[in-house]
Parts: sequence; C-alpha cells; structure tokens
Amino acid sequence: MINRDVSPAVVARLSRYYRFLRALKEKGVERVSSAELASMMDLTASQIRQDLNCFGGFGQQGYGYNVEYLFGELRRLLGAEEGYTAVIVGAGNLGAALAHAQTFSRRGVTVTAMFDISPKLIGTRIGDLDVYHDDDFAAFYKKRPFDIAVLCVPKDAAQECADRLSALGVPAFWNFTGIEITVPDGCVVENVHLGDSLLTLSYKLKKRT
Amino acid sequence: MINRDVSPAVVARLSRYYRFLRALKEKGVERVSSAELASMMDLTASQIRQDLNCFGGFGQQGYGYNVEYLFGELRRLLGAEEGYTAVIVGAGNLGAALAHAQTFSRRGVTVTAMFDISPKLIGTRIGDLDVYHDDDFAAFYKKRPFDIAVLCVPKDAAQECADRLSALGVPAFWNFTGIEITVPDGCVVENVHLGDSLLTLSYKLKKRT
Repeated sequence: MINRDVSPAVVARLSRYYRFLRALKEKGVERVSSAELASMMDLTASQIRQDLNCFGGFGQQGYGYNVEYLFGELRRLLGAEEGYTAVIVGAGNLGAALAHAQTFSRRGVTVTAMFDISPKLIGTRIGDLDVYHDDDFAAFYKKRPFDIAVLCVPKDAAQECADRLSALGVPAFWNFTGIEITVPDGCVVENVHLGDSLLTLSYKLKKRT
Repeated sequence: MINRDVSPAVVARLSRYYRFLRALKEKGVERVSSAELASMMDLTASQIRQDLNCFGGFGQQGYGYNVEYLFGELRRLLGAEEGYTAVIVGAGNLGAALAHAQTFSRRGVTVTAMFDISPKLIGTRIGDLDVYHDDDFAAFYKKRPFDIAVLCVPKDAAQECADRLSALGVPAFWNFTGIEITVPDGCVVENVHLGDSLLTLSYKLKKRT
C-alpha cells in the first residue's frame, strides 16, 4: 500500500501531521476535515489530501479524517511502533538535555544508555540513564544492541564515533554534531544542524527590515 | 543584487554552504570549484551554480570560487554581520545547552540574557548569562532591546511567551517548544521540531529494513 518513493519533503510533513494529530487526539477531537487541518497547519486542503493519498488516503468524502485512526496509521508508517532503541553518545549539556526530554518516548523510541569519555561522567546517571565509557560501545552493543546512536559529541570526534558504531552494526544516526558524517551504505542519518536553522532565521530577519 | 524571492529550500542550502565554506576557510583552503563543493556536499555542481547565481554568482569560469570572498558574501547575505542579539527564554536543560554552545557566536549573534520563572534559577548565572524572571521582559527589553527570543519553555507556556514578547516589539523567534506559535505580521519564526526529525529518522530506518 505504501508508495515507496515518498520524497523527503513529504516525510517531513508526515512527521508534522503526526504532531498535529496527536494534539487533536489529546484534546479529544474525533474527526477533522482536510480544510480544518489545512487551516491549523497553514497548508492547503488539496496539499493535505495529496500527501495523505501517498499513504493510501485514510479519509472519507464528507466525513474527513478519523483522528485516532489517521494518527495510528501515521504512527505505524513512520516507524513509531517499531520499538526502536537509542543511546546518546556525548553526555554534555545537549546530550543531557535530550536525555531529559520526552522527544523519544513520545515517538516510541526508548533510550537505553549514555556514553561519554569524561571520567567525571562515567558511572554517573543522567535522568534514568547510566553513563558508560565510549570504550564500552562494543561490549554494550553485544549485550544490548540498539538501533539509533544520537551523536552529541564535539565536531572533531563525530566521524570517529560514527565509524566505530557503524562498524558494530548500528544502523541509524541522529546527528547533532554540526558536521556531516559519512556512514556505510545501508546506514541512515538524520542531521540536526541548529546553526543552519539560526542562520535561516537571521536571513528572514534581515529580509524583513 | 539579491533576488528577493529566494525559496526557503535555497535559504536552507545557503546556510549549509556557509558551514562548508567556513570549514574550508579554517583549513586554509583559498579556492574551491563547484565540482569539489558538490562532491563534499553531495549536491550536483549545476545545483550549486544555480543556487549561488540567485545571489549574483561570485564564481569565475575556470577559477571556481574564492573561499574567503564567498564566505564573506554569504555571511553578509544571511545576516551574520548584522550584530543581532538574542535572549534565551527557559533556562532548563535545553536552554542551558544552547547557552553553552557556540552556535550563536559562530553566526554573529550575541546572547545577552536568559529568562525563566523558577525561583531556583532567577539571579543565578548560566555560563556568562544572568537569569532574569519572565516578569522582567519589558524592563529588560526597554533597556537592552534584542532581536531574537529563543523559546525553550514548556509547550503550554509557548504561545503566551511569544505573545508577551511580540507585544514588546521582539521581531524574531527561534522556537524549540515543539508547538507552532502564532506571531503578528512582521514577526519571523524559525521552528526546530526535534521530534519531527526523530520521526523522519525512524521512517528511514523502517524503510531500510
């Protein structure tokens, strides 16, 4: 049923639909029309119908979308029901902030550990998470393999960390390091370049004045 | 010289060029061809030429781009030389992580203060930044107006914070709250929805298997 060539832009929008539908669900809303969703999301109703058609529709003419059903379908399609696990590599400020956030649990991802190289941090707990040394990657992965490595290490350690982890078989990297890492074929990466986002804001601000 | 209708996708790529050119500059590289840049950035040379043509080119046939010159032009075009100032609203884990990051200074933005409502945090310093109470927004803004409010508050406080700050005249919002805020005409917003990024990764991982 799933169109296998969905564009990255559509996938990004599907993640956004997920967020809006979850909010509707939490408010107890049972159904929503494409026009209502469009107005909330600042998209056109036809854009929404087109996006959701890629995934088989889920809507019924004259009724709109059943919120719970569509949310569940998106959850499934986007992989939030796969029970993915993650570790956070780099227990500095950003790593710790992510460890405390609900970002993971709200998308079905369980964080199982943190890693760092600082003697001050190894053996401590951040939130509910034990902090291990990077040298324990292999031993940990053997006992408790994980799907996603969240890279919060300094730029100059980023590629080496990615190399070591992908060599163990880690298939996915959520990369906050600000540099673009190279991974073997078959691995997937999603970059969060906060600096690019700040510059985009700065451009919008400059254009405005 | 600037094409005033540059698409958001191009602006995002320009921020990425900025990052790669800075890295080249730091390595002492003086010039780069569109083919070399394309290979580094996983784009096509013609895509790069097309993007940079929107901004008047900067390249010379047979020479390529002068790294320092192009970096300087992008810096100027993207607003990194405007001397923008920012405050971080919400001094929790994420706010503190941003306060310690070089993300701002590397893009010409100076962070001048933090705000929170927790009595434990008011009056403390995080990194070099004093933490003030949200009730001091107006008094602070009057004395030291700022360009960007970095919203790191809980979801349910996001819109109210944006309302109070935009009413004072704050023109730009870098929004980490995970909900989409509404701002008056003339204000600009850049959203960082980490959850959307994680779901996109989860989708890629699911598709891979």
